[in-house]
Amino acid sequence: MSVLNKYSERVDRAISEIVIPEEPDGLYQPIRYTMDSKGKRLRPVITLMGCDLFNGTISKALPAAIGMEIFHNFTLLHDDIMDKSPMRRGKPSVYKKWNVNTAILAGDTMFIYANEQVCKTDNKYLKNVLAEFNKLAREVCEGQQYDMEFEASNDVSIADYIRMIRLKTAVLIAGSLKIGAIIAGAPPEDQEKLYQFGINIGVAFQLQDDYLDVFGDEETVGKQIGNDIVTNKKTYLYLKAMEVAKENTKQSLKETYNSNNDGKEQKVESVKKIFKHLEVDKITKEEMEKYFHLANKSLESINVKDESKNELREFAFNLKDRNN
Amino acid sequence: MSVLNKYSERVDRAISEIVIPEEPDGLYQPIRYTMDSKGKRLRPVITLMGCDLFNGTISKALPAAIGMEIFHNFTLLHDDIMDKSPMRRGKPSVYKKWNVNTAILAGDTMFIYANEQVCKTDNKYLKNVLAEFNKLAREVCEGQQYDMEFEASNDVSIADYIRMIRLKTAVLIAGSLKIGAIIAGAPPEDQEKLYQFGINIGVAFQLQDDYLDVFGDEETVGKQIGNDIVTNKKTYLYLKAMEVAKENTKQSLKETYNSNNDGKEQKVESVKKIFKHLEVDKITKEEMEKYFHLANKSLESINVKDESKNELREFAFNLKDRNN
Repeated sequence: MSVLNKYSERVDRAISEIVIPEEPDGLYQPIRYTMDSKGKRLRPVITLMGCDLFNGTISKALPAAIGMEIFHNFTLLHDDIMDKSPMRRGKPSVYKKWNVNTAILAGDTMFIYANEQVCKTDNKYLKNVLAEFNKLAREVCEGQQYDMEFEASNDVSIADYIRMIRLKTAVLIAGSLKIGAIIAGAPPEDQEKLYQFGINIGVAFQLQDDYLDVFGDEETVGKQIGNDIVTNKKTYLYLKAMEVAKENTKQSLKETYNSNNDGKEQKVESVKKIFKHLEVDKITKEEMEKYFHLANKSLESINVKDESKNELREFAFNLKDRNN
Repeated sequence: MSVLNKYSERVDRAISEIVIPEEPDGLYQPIRYTMDSKGKRLRPVITLMGCDLFNGTISKALPAAIGMEIFHNFTLLHDDIMDKSPMRRGKPSVYKKWNVNTAILAGDTMFIYANEQVCKTDNKYLKNVLAEFNKLAREVCEGQQYDMEFEASNDVSIADYIRMIRLKTAVLIAGSLKIGAIIAGAPPEDQEKLYQFGINIGVAFQLQDDYLDVFGDEETVGKQIGNDIVTNKKTYLYLKAMEVAKENTKQSLKETYNSNNDGKEQKVESVKKIFKHLEVDKITKEEMEKYFHLANKSLESINVKDESKNELREFAFNLKDRNN
């Protein structure tokens, strides 16, 4: 995503400048390990974009932006324990490389780091930024709770699922954008419009993740295709399939999805075939389009010069177009 | 502790007024469970006392005070997982009553609640209060890390141990006091003196905990005597005994301490006898006295009217005199 590069260098530099103490090594080594393995750094970059949209001073939004990235990494550390995810960004996750206790405590400490960064925001906007940060942090926890509950439930509706991904994924994207806008001194109604842009982009982003896991190209996605199917994850595709399927297909999908007896590859192929037959790929794409459309509508309604929106337009377009 | 009552009612009321959402119940029920089981509520009370010492407005320090209590409860939730403590305040700990994942996520959410409370502080002092809060939070995590490392190590010095309890216990007491002082607008040098009072009180408090676990009265302490011995915990008493003992007593203590073969009661009796023989009870009392003395010296040097110090004097005296 070319438009991201403009900001990501500043973010990378600022993150690399954070001083992480040497001792106790058992606490700070896993934090260094996590910070060194950079992901997309989407969240801090869009905080800066949210600030730039309203002609704010990028350097003033930088600490909060970095706070968003560290917060995101903290949630991954704890989520990986809860979801038993052994790998993260191509490396063993912290609880696997060390142990659960280390991942709990290093995660807690990273949350404090995130707070420390956010607290560097100018006094003028500090209270509003912190209110938004605490709100999104709480909602991300609620999202993770729903996610865990859904894995143990046989009664999850599409509406439940959308609410869950809104909380778990979209509010952090929306909040990151809004915090940038707050620091730029944007009017509240425009902050809210940018927030809605973020919510819709965030939901679309997660639906796309679900889609790419099944219908993506292994090489470009950069991870094994069908992982959600192998781990019986209740994704949008699965829930939608269960919604639209007739009784016998429903039974067969349920059985296939919940058993790994025939081997992983066979399972992925069988489920994919059912999804295709039910046109779940098409339905998911259409749903994504719907959210992208809502996002763009929200962006267009923001009261700034048209050309100022180009970056976020490009960002949304690239996100829609992504194959990894 | 009579002097605490004056403030604890306000703290209790304010905590009971915090709105905890209904949904997702799986996340908020364990939080309600934790908040309902009140402990001493020492930390919020001393924040208010720290504020009162400098003639500050108590109501302005109340949100931060409550933040200290919720933060303390958050650390207990995660510590209980890490330390495998099945009971807390006479009830099953959260990870036992529910599970590890619930305790991780409920803990994270309580940390956010703590932040939300601290953020209610007036803008004028918000940045300083948050800086102190984030600093103490990080140090508490460092203390927990050292505590875990020490349990797996055979090479812990008394100095290591004091540093650990300073981080794990004393900085939260010292920070709680200091935050009260900041909100009262106290001069920085007096804030620092109150902080040092808290550090020394905190270390003394933990040494006393170690002492009471072995030499306390079961009925007044309110929990089983000798629990640290049964669980082979490296307390001040054990480390001091290992320091002062001659080679053969050292060997015998080490063997007795690390085995539960002869039954719990027998083990506690044997270790207690060795401690008595080495006069570790007396040495620990003297060490406690030393820290209480340092605390009082620090308190006396604070530049406020002498009578304003009476509450904290009484607090320190009661703490020294406590038998539970």
